[in-house]
Amino acid sequence: MSVFLVGAGPGSVDLLTLRAAKLLSRAQVVVYDRLVDDEVLALAPADAERIDVGKRPGGSHNQALINDLLISLGQRFDRVVRLKGGDPFVFGRGGEELAALRSAGIHTEVVPGITSAFAAPLAAGIPVTHRGVSRGVCVITGHTLGDDAVDYSRLANGQITLVVLMGVANRGAIARQLMSGGLSPSTPVAAIESASTPAQRVLRCRLDELGDTEILNPAALVIGAVAALDLNDAEVVAGAELA
Amino acid sequence: MSVFLVGAGPGSVDLLTLRAAKLLSRAQVVVYDRLVDDEVLALAPADAERIDVGKRPGGSHNQALINDLLISLGQRFDRVVRLKGGDPFVFGRGGEELAALRSAGIHTEVVPGITSAFAAPLAAGIPVTHRGVSRGVCVITGHTLGDDAVDYSRLANGQITLVVLMGVANRGAIARQLMSGGLSPSTPVAAIESASTPAQRVLRCRLDELGDTEILNPAALVIGAVAALDLNDAEVVAGAELA
Repeated sequence: MSVFLVGAGPGSVDLLTLRAAKLLSRAQVVVYDRLVDDEVLALAPADAERIDVGKRPGGSHNQALINDLLISLGQRFDRVVRLKGGDPFVFGRGGEELAALRSAGIHTEVVPGITSAFAAPLAAGIPVTHRGVSRGVCVITGHTLGDDAVDYSRLANGQITLVVLMGVANRGAIARQLMSGGLSPSTPVAAIESASTPAQRVLRCRLDELGDTEILNPAALVIGAVAALDLNDAEVVAGAELA
Repeated sequence: MSVFLVGAGPGSVDLLTLRAAKLLSRAQVVVYDRLVDDEVLALAPADAERIDVGKRPGGSHNQALINDLLISLGQRFDRVVRLKGGDPFVFGRGGEELAALRSAGIHTEVVPGITSAFAAPLAAGIPVTHRGVSRGVCVITGHTLGDDAVDYSRLANGQITLVVLMGVANRGAIARQLMSGGLSPSTPVAAIESASTPAQRVLRCRLDELGDTEILNPAALVIGAVAALDLNDAEVVAGAELA
């Protein structure tokens, strides 16, 4: 009668925490999303049930259905692991799942994971905070625009690094709002595609070029002075594509 | 001739990543800060050299001395692990150490860790993002004020959760700046002392009470609507102390 909401981290199996790996190794059921790697799932016992509730274009599972599934599993099994990419409480909707499980009286524990919002810049040699360059970091999603959305113009702040997840589709509008809020058109931007995987690619441009820069999903956008840094490689040329 | 800058996470040994644990188990030298737990250090071989460069009030090591030490060790050993609390690139000054090592021609790799900025709220049952409550999260430090400091009034944004690390000493001034920037005096605040340790204590108050609320270091401050949530316990009373 226990559900564990476990952050799976940014993808690589060895960026799981020891606690996550141990819970997986003893799981009876693993409920996972599309972005969780096969090598991570392989840590569960061979006979553990594996349930994919990954959201896909045109075929996404409804969050309420996922909550109901977790409650039902929590009532039947002792060790249910709900794997979530990154950290459960950073855009993972883990809070909703936890609240639903607790309301149903299911014992639930949350295990943090490394968020891709920080792991992606790190993999590209970009420190999200850096003395004399960035005093803080703000993480937001870019998948909604309109009345109900984040007002990006209010996030224009040259002291703070901005990391935008799920912002590829709206990158032009996000850039325009940030510039209307006062960010310089020449603010450095880095887009990290498929971070920490063999397909990782880092694109660099200026904020006013972001809308016209081709970027493939999934990608994290880093906006701010630190985005010009590549501490993995001293030779960074703005606008150049880095392997 | 390799240095690994490794995030040690928020404290608990089982919140290390598998990669960090493996690197530690093979380390010849471990260079660590005061906040790294003994159980974490115990993962290194018994005969590995352990060097404490932790910053203490009145006796802090100079960052330049730490950089020089790492370079010197990197020139003499194959497997030097530089352990940093949390994540190396989130207020860890890991970027400076990486840049110094790379400049000296030392092969260096960076391993991400779970930042306490997110692990501390999680341990208190607070999701830093939550549908309909918080659209993003901004992480800053509060240990400097004055001309050279973060302008907190510009971070006043009801859509975004604010997590302030090292902000206990300046909490009154931070609260005043946030209110002058437009945040409501009734904005919920949670202070998580000694997160994820047996001494963890969570205090809740309003933003206008923050300056007068006794808080012990180390603590993370969470400011915003999510700070009223405790998904670990439905009975949250504003202003009450929670075990």
